[in-house]
Amino acid sequence: IAKEVAKLLEMKAQLGGDEGKPKFVLKTPKGTRDYGPKQMAIRERVFSAIISCFKRHGAEVIDTPVFELKETLTGKYGEDSKLIYDLKDQGGELLSLRYDLTVPFARYLAMNKITNIKRYHIAKVYRRDNPAMTRGRYREFYQCDFDIAGQFDPMIPDAECLKIVHEILSDLQLGDFVIKVNDRRILDGMFAVCGVPDSKFRTICSSVDKLDKVPWEEVRSEMVGEKGLSPEAADRIGEYVQLHGGLDLIERLLQDPKLSQNKLAKEGLGDMKLLFEYLTLFGITGKISFDLSLARGLDYYTGVIFEAVLLQQENEHVEELVGVGSVAGGGRYDGLVGMFDPKGRKVPCVGVSIGIERIFSILEQRLEASEEKIRTTETQVLVASAQKKLLEERLKLISELWDAGIKLQYCEDTGIPLVAIVGEQELKDGVIKLRIVATREEVNIRRESLVEEIRRRTSQ
Amino acid sequence: IAKEVAKLLEMKAQLGGDEGKPKFVLKTPKGTRDYGPKQMAIRERVFSAIISCFKRHGAEVIDTPVFELKETLTGKYGEDSKLIYDLKDQGGELLSLRYDLTVPFARYLAMNKITNIKRYHIAKVYRRDNPAMTRGRYREFYQCDFDIAGQFDPMIPDAECLKIVHEILSDLQLGDFVIKVNDRRILDGMFAVCGVPDSKFRTICSSVDKLDKVPWEEVRSEMVGEKGLSPEAADRIGEYVQLHGGLDLIERLLQDPKLSQNKLAKEGLGDMKLLFEYLTLFGITGKISFDLSLARGLDYYTGVIFEAVLLQQENEHVEELVGVGSVAGGGRYDGLVGMFDPKGRKVPCVGVSIGIERIFSILEQRLEASEEKIRTTETQVLVASAQKKLLEERLKLISELWDAGIKLQYCEDTGIPLVAIVGEQELKDGVIKLRIVATREEVNIRRESLVEEIRRRTSQ
Repeated sequence: IAKEVAKLLEMKAQLGGDEGKPKFVLKTPKGTRDYGPKQMAIRERVFSAIISCFKRHGAEVIDTPVFELKETLTGKYGEDSKLIYDLKDQGGELLSLRYDLTVPFARYLAMNKITNIKRYHIAKVYRRDNPAMTRGRYREFYQCDFDIAGQFDPMIPDAECLKIVHEILSDLQLGDFVIKVNDRRILDGMFAVCGVPDSKFRTICSSVDKLDKVPWEEVRSEMVGEKGLSPEAADRIGEYVQLHGGLDLIERLLQDPKLSQNKLAKEGLGDMKLLFEYLTLFGITGKISFDLSLARGLDYYTGVIFEAVLLQQENEHVEELVGVGSVAGGGRYDGLVGMFDPKGRKVPCVGVSIGIERIFSILEQRLEASEEKIRTTETQVLVASAQKKLLEERLKLISELWDAGIKLQYCEDTGIPLVAIVGEQELKDGVIKLRIVATREEVNIRRESLVEEIRRRTSQ
Repeated sequence: IAKEVAKLLEMKAQLGGDEGKPKFVLKTPKGTRDYGPKQMAIRERVFSAIISCFKRHGAEVIDTPVFELKETLTGKYGEDSKLIYDLKDQGGELLSLRYDLTVPFARYLAMNKITNIKRYHIAKVYRRDNPAMTRGRYREFYQCDFDIAGQFDPMIPDAECLKIVHEILSDLQLGDFVIKVNDRRILDGMFAVCGVPDSKFRTICSSVDKLDKVPWEEVRSEMVGEKGLSPEAADRIGEYVQLHGGLDLIERLLQDPKLSQNKLAKEGLGDMKLLFEYLTLFGITGKISFDLSLARGLDYYTGVIFEAVLLQQENEHVEELVGVGSVAGGGRYDGLVGMFDPKGRKVPCVGVSIGIERIFSILEQRLEASEEKIRTTETQVLVASAQKKLLEERLKLISELWDAGIKLQYCEDTGIPLVAIVGEQELKDGVIKLRIVATREEVNIRRESLVEEIRRRTSQ
């Protein structure tokens, strides 16, 4: 409705408006939206599930400014840098809105010389992308990031990140999912043995990254046509990227005559084996797929990469949900902090980002379909009076209840479980009438027991 | 320390840096800061106190985008508009970062045709002001706003806003405070009877607003010298603005031969009397002062205005706290929503904004002085093992505890109350050794009772 209204108002404004009022457009900027009380209620539910998981894993929380010095973001995002929002030069520093939470995190670590931290960060990031708002793609959107920085036993933090994705997606009950896993070293090793020149690793990797959206034929023709790869090399890649599986596939590739000769690939496969052993101990391999077609867009990954994909939607009536796809992703980036440190000192990092906007849009649509009523306040009691003149007495009672920490309202609202009624006779008798909305039952409660009675009747 | 490091790095970068690395400055933008885990712990404590008060008062929550169309902000802030951050024109709409939460709220109401809502909104706003970071003045800072929109019995929502300020400041234990109250209609009536021409009301009001920072002589000379007011008019104002008090002062001014003849002033004083009656019922007049020198900077107020000021600092050792001053403010703005409605339909509104950054800086400095250790995680148990080889067993136990919702850590951290130790003999016996960190006591717990035991020992 908000969008409809905005559209109509925009048309009206363009037609000149009435009463010589200035033409103005009553809307939020392109690719952004307001969160009304209902959306906020969903948002807080999801955040609370995610935060309690992050805390269970011992994370601290940090926050950084919404903008960074422009140079802090320069050279971190490859081709996607064109999507960064810059601030106008109004004198002083050149600033840009943050594009993700990972680069600010790396800047924070380098600036404060922190070499060991487990932290989460939930905040909005900004991308001048083509919005697809019904599918949860916005220009202003939340990221929920959990990262582990520091030196640990190999693959232990990486396994924990996957455990976290598993816990959160299970907890939110979004339907069946699979977490695809790969390693940048395996990809680079694969490119090498397929005959891709070193200088083309990153751009060919970007092509492979498109495989979850377009068929192999198209990706192949991009590699050969646009990026000048030999058809033979492309075909060799084509064979590898079909492969996905578990420990068995890892064992097979460790025996692969070509890959096993490549140092990077061998390292990556060895670590992948260790990772799967840990995931087996965690009991979550059922949802994990080692997938050679997974590449991830960002430049800064150096080891394990992963992405969680929803396999089906819960509600078959809502056609648009097809394609919501990826709901979490992440990986290891051991070089990023070093880019900020004046001496280039590295801090190994691995992290996961939960794609919260997609999850919101799934839950919003599900809620709309279900007609479940969502409460947007926590009000326990409505204070009313039968007689007009009792405003003073009502205010006294209201003040008393507020001071006792009771959540109340003095005007109509939906979903409030109790009504406290101030009446003349009751005042004389030293009682307050309490109506239980669900049952329409009414009881007189002695004034001094009222707080306790409300607490008792509204605690679950 | 962070600031020191940034300063040193800046100097270093300017000197050229080593190893031919590019010169870059490792810092956050001017007037902004990171929140590390300790600051976040304080921030979350304060937010939780404030949010629980807002919820007690039956508020819903909304959120709006960090930027608005530039024209949405145009003409709302008077002289302060020069402090607005604009985004660079990268093609498409012209955008600005929000300057407060009130104008986006009014835009939201008009856009969604909402005529009745009680909502809170906690978010960052942006002002290109001169930062004074030790006193909690930043260019990026939080506002915590609570507003009531809609038609109600006169002064009931206004009284509720004051009750909220009183509850929050009492709850946070920031020391003694006073809430100054005035009304724009009383100010305008006062200007009229003192002989200020209508066209000078707003600019003279801005001068009066400075009285909390500069002495009357200076304000007077600004009025007369810069703003061209007659010395007689200025002196008459000078007499009124010394006045402050309670119901008695209101009664006296209602009898004032000049003020009582002015329609606006009479209306304002009548409502002020009603407000004080309600505040008496709420039992909070002890902290309220009707103060004729209170003016508030923003243009959009139309009725009651108020501002809460801390009267002293708790800790006399921290000299810098002097001048922290105002920690909450607000008022009635009945015309703002109408500026956005295509037909100019008005929605009466009154609201309060809590000056959270000043509160943070007080609590941060107090915490530093007290040497209290603040926990930045909620970890309940550390899982360790005596023997090197037991990684597998540890991972199994860790996974089991995570799945039971226990908050844990597998590496060192401070403040964790329990350590679970996996040992070979214990594994054979089917137990886990639990060390209670505070008492150094160690007990063997049967594996199947471990979750319950941890819950029991870590619940308060």
